Amino acid sequence: MKRILSGMQPSGKPHLGNYLGAMRQHVAMQEQGECYYFVANYHALTTVRDGARLKSLTLELVMDYLALGIDPTKTTFFLQSDVPSLTELTWIFSTITPMGLLERAHAWKDAQAKKKKDPTAGLFIYPVLMACDILMYKPNLVPVGKDQKQHVEIARDIASYFNNTYGDTFPMPEPVIHEETAVVPGTDGQKMSKSYGNTIEIFAPADELKKQIFSIKTDSAGVDDPKDPNTCIPFLLLKHFLNKEEGKEAELRLQTGGVGYAELKKNLFEKMLAHFAEARDKRLELEKKKDYCVGVLEEGKRRANALAQATMEEVREKTGLTL
Amino acid sequence: MKRILSGMQPSGKPHLGNYLGAMRQHVAMQEQGECYYFVANYHALTTVRDGARLKSLTLELVMDYLALGIDPTKTTFFLQSDVPSLTELTWIFSTITPMGLLERAHAWKDAQAKKKKDPTAGLFIYPVLMACDILMYKPNLVPVGKDQKQHVEIARDIASYFNNTYGDTFPMPEPVIHEETAVVPGTDGQKMSKSYGNTIEIFAPADELKKQIFSIKTDSAGVDDPKDPNTCIPFLLLKHFLNKEEGKEAELRLQTGGVGYAELKKNLFEKMLAHFAEARDKRLELEKKKDYCVGVLEEGKRRANALAQATMEEVREKTGLTL
Repeated sequence: MKRILSGMQPSGKPHLGNYLGAMRQHVAMQEQGECYYFVANYHALTTVRDGARLKSLTLELVMDYLALGIDPTKTTFFLQSDVPSLTELTWIFSTITPMGLLERAHAWKDAQAKKKKDPTAGLFIYPVLMACDILMYKPNLVPVGKDQKQHVEIARDIASYFNNTYGDTFPMPEPVIHEETAVVPGTDGQKMSKSYGNTIEIFAPADELKKQIFSIKTDSAGVDDPKDPNTCIPFLLLKHFLNKEEGKEAELRLQTGGVGYAELKKNLFEKMLAHFAEARDKRLELEKKKDYCVGVLEEGKRRANALAQATMEEVREKTGLTL
Repeated sequence: MKRILSGMQPSGKPHLGNYLGAMRQHVAMQEQGECYYFVANYHALTTVRDGARLKSLTLELVMDYLALGIDPTKTTFFLQSDVPSLTELTWIFSTITPMGLLERAHAWKDAQAKKKKDPTAGLFIYPVLMACDILMYKPNLVPVGKDQKQHVEIARDIASYFNNTYGDTFPMPEPVIHEETAVVPGTDGQKMSKSYGNTIEIFAPADELKKQIFSIKTDSAGVDDPKDPNTCIPFLLLKHFLNKEEGKEAELRLQTGGVGYAELKKNLFEKMLAHFAEARDKRLELEKKKDYCVGVLEEGKRRANALAQATMEEVREKTGLTL
């Protein structure tokens, strides 16, 4: 069975963009291999500098994923910080990683291009930690979005440096690039993103969810006017909850005229409630079961460290850190 | 009692320059406080990329120090890599350390100035690990050579960043600058250094030691010629093994004439054998007692981790890494 590795950054209430872009794939991939999923709370430190907030973001992400169907009997689900030897490997890797490799990393080049004020050393060296996130567990496949492909390439480079210096240790992980998901538009038509304040949150209470959906920007076209399915935001979102046939039919009706925005929004609202019904119930239930969530992470910690310990024993022996 | 913290980089057979410049102070400081001394094997990875060699360098340094009088009942003597949470703290600190601070570090500026080919990320971020080496144990005093003063300054800066971000956690460590030790000349008159191949090794077998001492470069002055005590290498080395009175007397005789180089060298050889007699015996004995050395490090590991664990619990709680 293939070992699949992926990390999730805790970043607040999950929205449709998160779900369609990554979360749903994470859930689905559980059927395709032995999954190791971690909450990237070490990475989150580069942006979240408030302990209480990081704790709550972390726990919420755990509940979100468990509610959406991460199955801890199949999947090893754990906190990055519960495998602290990742940071030991980060140091070891940093001693064989040329500066040039990190200077060429996209996120760093962006920060330089935007003349980001006072970037931190963490922002600079995080690709090394990310290489450890991957290599530590010696996975076969690393599913990533197109924009994260470089992380796997850097991990492969670092694995090569290590193997060349200390002998074969790390197999080359293969990136699996996600099927292109069309950009999910937010309520204002821009890409859906917390930073734009245009999100539709999958676990928002029903009345709040309705409000978010009904705030989707539309033009002044009347019910009878034909509408373009490629630019009609409520339709672009609704489409994800229709099967192929339903999608085609709805597209045709939209182009013909006779479908109003209110109907589309109502439809989207109902489809979302139905699609997430089970997850929404489970999410509410988990709120009252923090102990259960912590228990899942404990078990994940145990399993992740079993792999990490084997890797680190090998690395410490080869580098000479163990006498 | 003051807590004193210092690290030693494993770098091969100890010579007079090492002893007079640092080792003897390490031994003496045991009377002045509660000492935490570690073998900096994580740091050594930036230059030693051969596991077997690092292991042997590490063990040799441990034997050297134990032979010279490190007393494990007083001093916590341990391997840096036996406190892996140092690297976790390194990651955490890196997320609050501005790049500019590291770009201003002497070692990095030197590497840049010398256009060192392919410097590694480890060379760049090692001041962060060094700050952890210090701050982890919340020491009062950090004895350093003048050229290492910046390490303590960087540690103080990072402590301030952390305290300002997450609340008071790290007390400010105070650097204690070593009394200026005059540069110890090697057998060729340059600064004594392994890289110049001009060392006099304190634990070399007697015949080898004699050879090294008798290879000290001298001019063609005869026995009766007056000699300058400030430039006569055998005398500059011998002086360290004379008390004030003996030193003055010897200086006078040298300036008057009648003392030949061979006599000075023979004198140095005998003084060294006498001064290091006990240490040299113990060093040979320890060669046969690897288990004892490992036991000392085990005990050091236990004590160092007791402090480190307390610090890390506080740090993980404040940063929100623990749920």
